[in-house]
Amino acid sequence: MKLKIAVLAGDGIGPEVIDQAVKVSDAIAKKFNHEITWRPALTGAAAIDAVGEPYPDETHEICATSDAVLFGAIGHPRYDNDPLAKVRPEQGLLKMRKKLGLFANVRPTFTFPSLLDKSPLKRERIEGTDLVFLRELTGGIYFGEKGRRDGGETAFDNCVYTRAEVIRLAKKGFELAMTRSKKLCCVDKANVLETSRLWRETVQAMEKDYPEVTVSYEFVDAVAMRLVQWPNSYDVLITENLFGDILTDEASVISGSMGLMPSASLGSNIGLFEPIHGSYPQATGLNIANPMATILSAAMMFENFGLLEEGKAIREAVNNALNKGIVTEDLADGGKAYGTKEVGAWITENI
Amino acid sequence: MKLKIAVLAGDGIGPEVIDQAVKVSDAIAKKFNHEITWRPALTGAAAIDAVGEPYPDETHEICATSDAVLFGAIGHPRYDNDPLAKVRPEQGLLKMRKKLGLFANVRPTFTFPSLLDKSPLKRERIEGTDLVFLRELTGGIYFGEKGRRDGGETAFDNCVYTRAEVIRLAKKGFELAMTRSKKLCCVDKANVLETSRLWRETVQAMEKDYPEVTVSYEFVDAVAMRLVQWPNSYDVLITENLFGDILTDEASVISGSMGLMPSASLGSNIGLFEPIHGSYPQATGLNIANPMATILSAAMMFENFGLLEEGKAIREAVNNALNKGIVTEDLADGGKAYGTKEVGAWITENI
Ligand SMILES: CC(C)[C@H](C(=O)O)[C@@H](O)C(=O)O
Ligand SMILES: CC(C)[C@H](C(=O)O)[C@@H](O)C(=O)O
Repeated sequence: MKLKIAVLAGDGIGPEVIDQAVKVSDAIAKKFNHEITWRPALTGAAAIDAVGEPYPDETHEICATSDAVLFGAIGHPRYDNDPLAKVRPEQGLLKMRKKLGLFANVRPTFTFPSLLDKSPLKRERIEGTDLVFLRELTGGIYFGEKGRRDGGETAFDNCVYTRAEVIRLAKKGFELAMTRSKKLCCVDKANVLETSRLWRETVQAMEKDYPEVTVSYEFVDAVAMRLVQWPNSYDVLITENLFGDILTDEASVISGSMGLMPSASLGSNIGLFEPIHGSYPQATGLNIANPMATILSAAMMFENFGLLEEGKAIREAVNNALNKGIVTEDLADGGKAYGTKEVGAWITENI
Repeated sequence: MKLKIAVLAGDGIGPEVIDQAVKVSDAIAKKFNHEITWRPALTGAAAIDAVGEPYPDETHEICATSDAVLFGAIGHPRYDNDPLAKVRPEQGLLKMRKKLGLFANVRPTFTFPSLLDKSPLKRERIEGTDLVFLRELTGGIYFGEKGRRDGGETAFDNCVYTRAEVIRLAKKGFELAMTRSKKLCCVDKANVLETSRLWRETVQAMEKDYPEVTVSYEFVDAVAMRLVQWPNSYDVLITENLFGDILTDEASVISGSMGLMPSASLGSNIGLFEPIHGSYPQATGLNIANPMATILSAAMMFENFGLLEEGKAIREAVNNALNKGIVTEDLADGGKAYGTKEVGAWITENI
């Protein structure tokens, strides 16, 4: 396969972890006979500094004409501390999601047996946890009309969903459930919100097209509880943008493997793949950041091209590194800690 | 003191646990020389069955002319399974909050040493947890305009806040922080929502009036994570209605003492006090429900009247019952389980 991949390294540790994922992907390309053209572009604080805009048109052009986007991390303390500021890296993120049509954010939470004890939860609560959130990413209150009235004394944010938006997200959820344990949970607040009632009635109407999938409907507050109590009782969960923002972050800390969690944001044409962790500014340039989540994001990228063997090869190499203790300091637990580059190199060699 | 207290027992186990809280309150009144007039009224499914309305005008009349409301639980499977139905108990709840002006929901989460092992979290993560959420309860997306357009194909919910609404909630937060460790966390999503930016700028402007209070600002997704990781790093948290709904439920399961957590909803005139647990329909009439959360809600009620000794006497009696193992089956752990009435009677006698 010939693949054009946009690389948005971003801020903080972004460039360092992206470098490792690129090395690993190149090794995969070599082994499985693919040709990857990497197309770097600016984003985040780096882009604001360079051209005054967190998601410049030129970057969009590169992304929109690529087969996928590999993304590092954005966010810089210079901008982060003031959400009331005019230009902020997050705006670039939202613009990118919207312009690339990335409507489905796929956020798996799974456990690595060797890391179970890092979880804040008791072992028996999380063993076997393997769930995926599908979060709607280009609608809802994030993108509805917002503003002020009464001379600034009243603020409003409008949450809007159309049936078509719910259908395309839910479809991905049903399809994913079919490849897994055929259990789907629709998370909403249908006892209060009209948008949630639209979500629920739409998903209910789709059930007949997937007779093998068992669908449950739960309120967002109940899910926020059960995720901590019995995370392993969930499989595929679908939800709207804001609920997804809160719940996927909550879910990310339960497994003890947060630093390893990849994610994908999918549209009809293009997918974006990124670690769920942030830009970790304090670690910038120190060669200590854990590159595994970004490397596993590259695995998701290959899998999304239908290249399942390629994805599996990456996952196995990461597992081997974990089992052999070839890990960065966050996972070293008193043992030897390797650098970002060394972990990346070991995984690359073991492809 | 002469107190008129509306009693809304509600559905499921509501009447049983309320009975115990009434007995305990009567013992307090006797010991400390108060006079309580109890004024029962219908709510929830019970009210729908009787008069077709979950919060009838007559009930409102009784509440509005009382000094406080003691509330059991609402929710019945007959209505719960269908949030798309026309008349639902939740609507009564929202109407009650609005009509009584209960704008501040106070939700403490604390630990009982003897129950620490019931938590899904590891002991070292939760030891010493003692936090309080102040959730705004009569504004935001719950009460904004909502509906459909395009022949039902588009749904919307409007989230609206005025500066005055933020100020009155935040004021309670600052005041509460002053009586505790002087740490206040404002939870918002100011990097995305205009209403959150109003919240943040309003709270920032109030900081100068409470120079002793240290205020932090955190995004709702970050708080959803840290609540699981380090709940004992929080003290007082203030937030808007929907975020509060999700986060207070999440917080409730971390301590292992969920079945014991009381809550208060305060307005300018009147307060409502209730356990955070639900109506637990399967346990109705079996004399097995744990009455302690409702009894502790009565403690909050006395404290809200400024009767701190009275509240303390109740808390001590509940602690004694826990230490002596006078508990219902949810806490019995293989030991002897007492009935709802027996636990209530023991606490009453030990006032
Ligand atoms: C940075 C912020 C705008 C963003 C969001 O809320 O979507 C982030 O929290 C995320 O989940 O990717
Ligand atoms: C029943 C529902 C309307 C209610 C809410 O969302 O406020 C409940 O979840 C609560 O937190 O009291």
